[in-house]
Amino acid sequence: MQVTSLTSRRSFIRSLTATTLGGTALALSGCGGSSRGSRPKKGPVIQKGGTILFQGDSITDAGRDRRSEGNANSTNALGKGYVYSIATQLLAEKAGDELKIYNRGISGNKVFQLADRWDKDCLDIKPDVLSILIGVNDIWHSLNGNYNGTVAKYEEDYRALLKRTVKALPNVKLVICEPFVLRCGAVNDKWFPEFDQYRAVAKKMSAEFNSLFVPFQGMFDDAVKKAPPAHWAGDGVHPSMAGAYLMGQEWLKVAGI
Amino acid sequence: MQVTSLTSRRSFIRSLTATTLGGTALALSGCGGSSRGSRPKKGPVIQKGGTILFQGDSITDAGRDRRSEGNANSTNALGKGYVYSIATQLLAEKAGDELKIYNRGISGNKVFQLADRWDKDCLDIKPDVLSILIGVNDIWHSLNGNYNGTVAKYEEDYRALLKRTVKALPNVKLVICEPFVLRCGAVNDKWFPEFDQYRAVAKKMSAEFNSLFVPFQGMFDDAVKKAPPAHWAGDGVHPSMAGAYLMGQEWLKVAGI
Repeated sequence: MQVTSLTSRRSFIRSLTATTLGGTALALSGCGGSSRGSRPKKGPVIQKGGTILFQGDSITDAGRDRRSEGNANSTNALGKGYVYSIATQLLAEKAGDELKIYNRGISGNKVFQLADRWDKDCLDIKPDVLSILIGVNDIWHSLNGNYNGTVAKYEEDYRALLKRTVKALPNVKLVICEPFVLRCGAVNDKWFPEFDQYRAVAKKMSAEFNSLFVPFQGMFDDAVKKAPPAHWAGDGVHPSMAGAYLMGQEWLKVAGI
Repeated sequence: MQVTSLTSRRSFIRSLTATTLGGTALALSGCGGSSRGSRPKKGPVIQKGGTILFQGDSITDAGRDRRSEGNANSTNALGKGYVYSIATQLLAEKAGDELKIYNRGISGNKVFQLADRWDKDCLDIKPDVLSILIGVNDIWHSLNGNYNGTVAKYEEDYRALLKRTVKALPNVKLVICEPFVLRCGAVNDKWFPEFDQYRAVAKKMSAEFNSLFVPFQGMFDDAVKKAPPAHWAGDGVHPSMAGAYLMGQEWLKVAGI
């Protein structure tokens, strides 16, 4: 039964990610004309005793309790989204590794807002692994008139943030997550093709900074063949439990877990 | 990398459960002198459109929001323990199956307290799959003088509850979870050997009612070879994130997922 179960899971994951693996492989091999080729890109991402920090917006935040954010591996501080899914699995499967996992996502954040709090909420934590998922608000808040953003500004802000990061933390292993949406809820035709350009910027940043890249959009594009978009994210932006689980599995796969 | 990753996970799970699989296999084969052999015991536990109900005490409850307990698959209503871990994975991997998952565990409950609320919190929900984890408070509250319980009373109450359940829901698929403790926190030598007798009763009930049996104690006995007991349950009773994840994986494996 064990073998059957794992075979089934492998088939499921393979079917979900068949089209996204290409993107992952590219990122892992460091293609893309890196301008910062001296940064580490080989070896296991998550190592014994490592500190792993997740940064981003509401998708990362996922209702975390900020009062306990200073405590590593705090159930409440990790929220109830993909970070929680990743953390539970890592803390179980790498039980003896004394990992320290933090979530500092904040709802509504755009790239410039990460920058505003980057010393306190990233550099001071000195992560060994830094995972970033940011971008959906950069376009969303612009579409609804609450922010004067553009793709070019997203790219400029994101590059500046990453430059600052690798300057302060030259050995940090970066995991850049692709912004994604599902075509339901708040997501309509007005988002496109501009949103694809935001996604492309995230991938470009990943190549420039020799980071791992988590191709969430392709993963969800495959997932909607199995269940409607709202099953994975009711409003098209914020993942459901099922969506968060998938994201966690994808992240772990890219990280080689 | 995919294959390596899954091989690694399989090895990990195998190493954790090597000693517990024997118990699982026994339960699945229906050994144990069942007195209710007419009940269904074959076929997939979780079927399309099925309603799955988790019942128990604080370990099941895990901080669930009772205000939304009437909504199937509600993130908040499922708590943040093993039920959540199981639900997220099921809702992702069986995305098209329209499962309805409920959590009605209540902190502090002993078997008789499940019975007190069984109509409302179980029979009225008409689950296709009913998972029960109960027993640790039956002994704990007796040890600390807050309940006048015995192993015999636990067995009597548990059998009565299950008889009532299968009478009202003759086709329900039962999953009986083994009570467990870890030797840390509130758990000291006073718990033994009596606690082992409570565990044996749960297994006996599983055999009598042709249920699946989830051998959590053996799973945790193996887990403590990888990290100290407190990594899995700080007080010896309530699982950490890592402990809850392991429980979810064990439950899913027994359910053939």
